[in-house]
Amino acid sequence: MGAVKSKRMPRAVREQQMLDAAVHIFGQRGYMAASMDDIAELAGVSKPLVYLYLNSKDELFTACIRREAKALTDAVRAGVRTDLPADRQLWEGLLAFFAHTLQNPDGWAVLHLQARTHGEPFAAEVTAMREELVAFVTQLIAVAAREAHRDPSSAERAERTEHEVAGLAEALVGAAESLAAWANTTPGVSAKQAAATLMNFAWAGLGNLMDGRAWAPPKS
Amino acid sequence: MGAVKSKRMPRAVREQQMLDAAVHIFGQRGYMAASMDDIAELAGVSKPLVYLYLNSKDELFTACIRREAKALTDAVRAGVRTDLPADRQLWEGLLAFFAHTLQNPDGWAVLHLQARTHGEPFAAEVTAMREELVAFVTQLIAVAAREAHRDPSSAERAERTEHEVAGLAEALVGAAESLAAWANTTPGVSAKQAAATLMNFAWAGLGNLMDGRAWAPPKS
Repeated sequence: MGAVKSKRMPRAVREQQMLDAAVHIFGQRGYMAASMDDIAELAGVSKPLVYLYLNSKDELFTACIRREAKALTDAVRAGVRTDLPADRQLWEGLLAFFAHTLQNPDGWAVLHLQARTHGEPFAAEVTAMREELVAFVTQLIAVAAREAHRDPSSAERAERTEHEVAGLAEALVGAAESLAAWANTTPGVSAKQAAATLMNFAWAGLGNLMDGRAWAPPKS
Repeated sequence: MGAVKSKRMPRAVREQQMLDAAVHIFGQRGYMAASMDDIAELAGVSKPLVYLYLNSKDELFTACIRREAKALTDAVRAGVRTDLPADRQLWEGLLAFFAHTLQNPDGWAVLHLQARTHGEPFAAEVTAMREELVAFVTQLIAVAAREAHRDPSSAERAERTEHEVAGLAEALVGAAESLAAWANTTPGVSAKQAAATLMNFAWAGLGNLMDGRAWAPPKS
């Protein structure tokens, strides 16, 4: 009864507090400059306790990436109603994506800026998340393309389209990443505005493509 | 006359050889894992000579970023004929961008993956380059938007458009960055294919926007 209250906290809760603090420090200062002292202080625990729970700075960083990646993909998945047409699904996915990245700027900085460049296994964690987002977008575009082109004889065209769809999905995810970083540093940009900008950019263009109205490169 | 020939090499030439080696090692292994021994060996010079010319690993890395950033923006600028319509300028700029990044995968890895996350001043170097590319695209979109909307009474619309144009430019540059990384790791994707994919994605969409055919978000 006389014990300090915070010591009674369940391990899982305390671990999440450490991760909250770590995501903030890693996101603000970067992996190299982040100190375990500052993370422990912000979490309100001793440094040995952080090491006891998370083992090392590397493992703490990995746990941050894994938690933030899961939170982002979960948010996008939860935001999308899969029974809607492809363009509505994309709109809902973009809304959920920008709402999450705007609400979690430190988490986004960890994923977008920090995780990819400090070698494996950090990069592998974020690559897996990115591949999941690209797969989601690829599938949406492919469904829309199949709905638009019902000509079954055109196997060659389907193969060409598949390659193009992969490129389009990469472009869209890259555009979303770039816009999230921009929205996080530009005052007054809401998640809805960012999503509408990208939707206009992407879907109006993709919609044209689906209807066979491609931009024609000049003959040269 | 009996001196070893390589010792006669002008300083500027030898420095470029060191930078060639450094860009390759940094691009392949990342900043942290790159060793000055390996860079010196690949450049065919002694390690003390690398330090004599470039002072430190940090300064060598900065010199690599600066050279690669300049090479990329120079390539894009040289590829664009500024007397052409906006869509043709964008097409030429994208062609030049993807041709350069495909021909210089290590340089692109240094700029896209390495430079942004090892703190200042590295990040500042690549931010300056990125801002130049965003400014180029912003101006192209703004010119096209002005050409499309000749209604001078709509000042409010112009302001709204300006904000949206900034977002569109960020989206397009982010899409190009993502596609460059994809093209560099996907066999059989040419610069022209990557440029055509993005041009279709971007310009068909932007073209619709210019004509006032925006994608309409659902009322909810």
